[in-house]
Amino acid sequence: MKVIIFGGDGFCGWPTSLYLSKLGLDVTIVDNLSRRKIDIDLGINSLTPIATIEERLSTWKTVSGNTINFFNIDIAKQYEKLLDLIKSERPDSIIHFAEQSSAPFSMKNSENKRYTIDNNLNSTNNLLAAIVESGLDIHVVHLGTMGVYGYGDNGMKIPEGYLKIHIKGENNEYFEKEIMYPPNPGSLYHMTKTQDALMFAFYNKNNGIRITDLHQGIVWGTQTKETSMDEKLINRFMYDGDYGTVLNRFIMQSAIGHALTVHGTGGQTRAFININDTVKCLEIAINNPPNNNEKVKIFNQMTETHKIRDLAIMIDKKTGCGIDNIKNPRKESPENDLYVTNKHFLNLGLTPTTLNDNLLDEITNIAKKYILRCDKSKILSNSYWTPGNKP
Amino acid sequence: MKVIIFGGDGFCGWPTSLYLSKLGLDVTIVDNLSRRKIDIDLGINSLTPIATIEERLSTWKTVSGNTINFFNIDIAKQYEKLLDLIKSERPDSIIHFAEQSSAPFSMKNSENKRYTIDNNLNSTNNLLAAIVESGLDIHVVHLGTMGVYGYGDNGMKIPEGYLKIHIKGENNEYFEKEIMYPPNPGSLYHMTKTQDALMFAFYNKNNGIRITDLHQGIVWGTQTKETSMDEKLINRFMYDGDYGTVLNRFIMQSAIGHALTVHGTGGQTRAFININDTVKCLEIAINNPPNNNEKVKIFNQMTETHKIRDLAIMIDKKTGCGIDNIKNPRKESPENDLYVTNKHFLNLGLTPTTLNDNLLDEITNIAKKYILRCDKSKILSNSYWTPGNKP
Repeated sequence: MKVIIFGGDGFCGWPTSLYLSKLGLDVTIVDNLSRRKIDIDLGINSLTPIATIEERLSTWKTVSGNTINFFNIDIAKQYEKLLDLIKSERPDSIIHFAEQSSAPFSMKNSENKRYTIDNNLNSTNNLLAAIVESGLDIHVVHLGTMGVYGYGDNGMKIPEGYLKIHIKGENNEYFEKEIMYPPNPGSLYHMTKTQDALMFAFYNKNNGIRITDLHQGIVWGTQTKETSMDEKLINRFMYDGDYGTVLNRFIMQSAIGHALTVHGTGGQTRAFININDTVKCLEIAINNPPNNNEKVKIFNQMTETHKIRDLAIMIDKKTGCGIDNIKNPRKESPENDLYVTNKHFLNLGLTPTTLNDNLLDEITNIAKKYILRCDKSKILSNSYWTPGNKP
Repeated sequence: MKVIIFGGDGFCGWPTSLYLSKLGLDVTIVDNLSRRKIDIDLGINSLTPIATIEERLSTWKTVSGNTINFFNIDIAKQYEKLLDLIKSERPDSIIHFAEQSSAPFSMKNSENKRYTIDNNLNSTNNLLAAIVESGLDIHVVHLGTMGVYGYGDNGMKIPEGYLKIHIKGENNEYFEKEIMYPPNPGSLYHMTKTQDALMFAFYNKNNGIRITDLHQGIVWGTQTKETSMDEKLINRFMYDGDYGTVLNRFIMQSAIGHALTVHGTGGQTRAFININDTVKCLEIAINNPPNNNEKVKIFNQMTETHKIRDLAIMIDKKTGCGIDNIKNPRKESPENDLYVTNKHFLNLGLTPTTLNDNLLDEITNIAKKYILRCDKSKILSNSYWTPGNKP
């Protein structure tokens, strides 16, 4: 199977590319290296030392014997190059990670708001328009987010993308419909994924494009079996206030003896998934495409839920680093529950990697190994949802 | 009251600008004149001879004594100019017409798909981001479309934007929610309005921006009292396959003795509004802003529904020009009903201008007056939703 991975140089894209290449798939990466450039602008760095994409790919060739092709294309802007590539490569599947992926970054200032909307929506539309123009039948797998659902719904179990509803008519009769789950995004980044969903529904309805949309939880962990094969293959590990995900940030904080920065009460419940399960989910998704004439498939790509304060307490117990409840930079309910179905992936063979000491120790070891690379001034978030959210 | 009208040079924007100026409002128009430039690219023309924006505004000054300011800004691209204008003008209200408004144009080819997404979504996001950055409390009135609802729903009455739903839980309990009406757009143009709606909901929730979204039906008619005051004030009249609206197109076709081109069976039911009611609705909307902390107000801006074939029959009876059922270029159900609430505007004083012979005669007179300007080669639609929709 031939697959093009857009955004294949990123935190999820890189381990996915190696994993699928290892499985014997013909993998091509397209990336404009924008995450590396954003690091430069923000003055941040992956804790782990990231090799250049050329070094990564030549190392992978050496350790695995497999070739991954790479094209530096900005798919939000360089439509003709994108179209030519699709027409010449004729992939069976496309994986679409090529979006700005940080909620705090998207809320930092007008420039970032504008970049996130412009980049994410044009990337998705260009990809879909190019597939239509190519005339090829290509399965698109998109990395979305659990954040499209909003944060919990009065104890109602959140289904996988679609919701059966009843509507009371004028004469007390009931109409039944199945709808996309009503979106309630918590940031402009999350909002772009809800806008993507409308594009997927339209291109699927109008042009019959086969699409799978993955609503992913917060990823924790860093390394996979493949990225561990050589230090030049190491995956990105962010600990800063914009791109660091919460559990990785806590582990980094504890490694340097910094109190764990919990936003507000920490009563926010979030969905989680380990990076090793992310790559497995992508394999399952490309191997189980929708049929022709089938609507967009939606999977919840998460394995467990936790309240943020419970994660902080767990890590504090191990490390004694303490907890610092700081003002929440986000505009959200201080406390929420989140009750979610994820049976699609479980039924297709996913065995969840849940939070446990061994894996946390592995991340802690990475944090300690590269501790001298940590810039402590970048730990606190300095993106605020509104002026009233500033400390 | 000070109002900036973005897209104030267009078919709805121009008569709205004059009407509000006549009422004594302090009106500023911002427009990048993109509709005039698209005419050039498509080789089409308004049947009515449109004066330049400078001629329009100097004529208006002469006949009314009122000054309308004008700025040529592309708000999808020139963010700093947009922000500076908002900060210096400090308007009470902003009316946002500044989007590519043709469904067939948006489906014609990849370039148009990409332009429509890029232009419409960046325009709306830039406007909202600039208002947040300005720190001002400005009411935004946006021209949306009835097309966000899709085409009818099994006889269910379509409410104004929001829908009360019931969801059956795991233990047969019912959860109640009020949601935005599940979108089902019929073209990429319509889709952008459903994506706009997500931006409005987010900026309203996060930043408290007061927003009114108008879901407008298909506009018919050309002139208003104000645009009739001088020939240099005349409004745009499109009869081509991309920008011509159905009733105006039929009247033009009958004026030149062309059979009325009905797409498919003509069993599509659509919502309609006269241009004179459009301008009145905008007045009502800016005079009835949402309160602070109120969610986005949504009004259905339409006064009647008709099946396309019934309109064709009505005009054929008057003119004997005949009806030509051609292959539908759109991907849609051949027949649908549409049952819609519009009580918000009626309760606020709108007196509908419904289809009647006098008004049709007025349009027919305009069509006949300018008949020599008609390019018959532009009458048929040449935008197809899929290759299978081509004749």
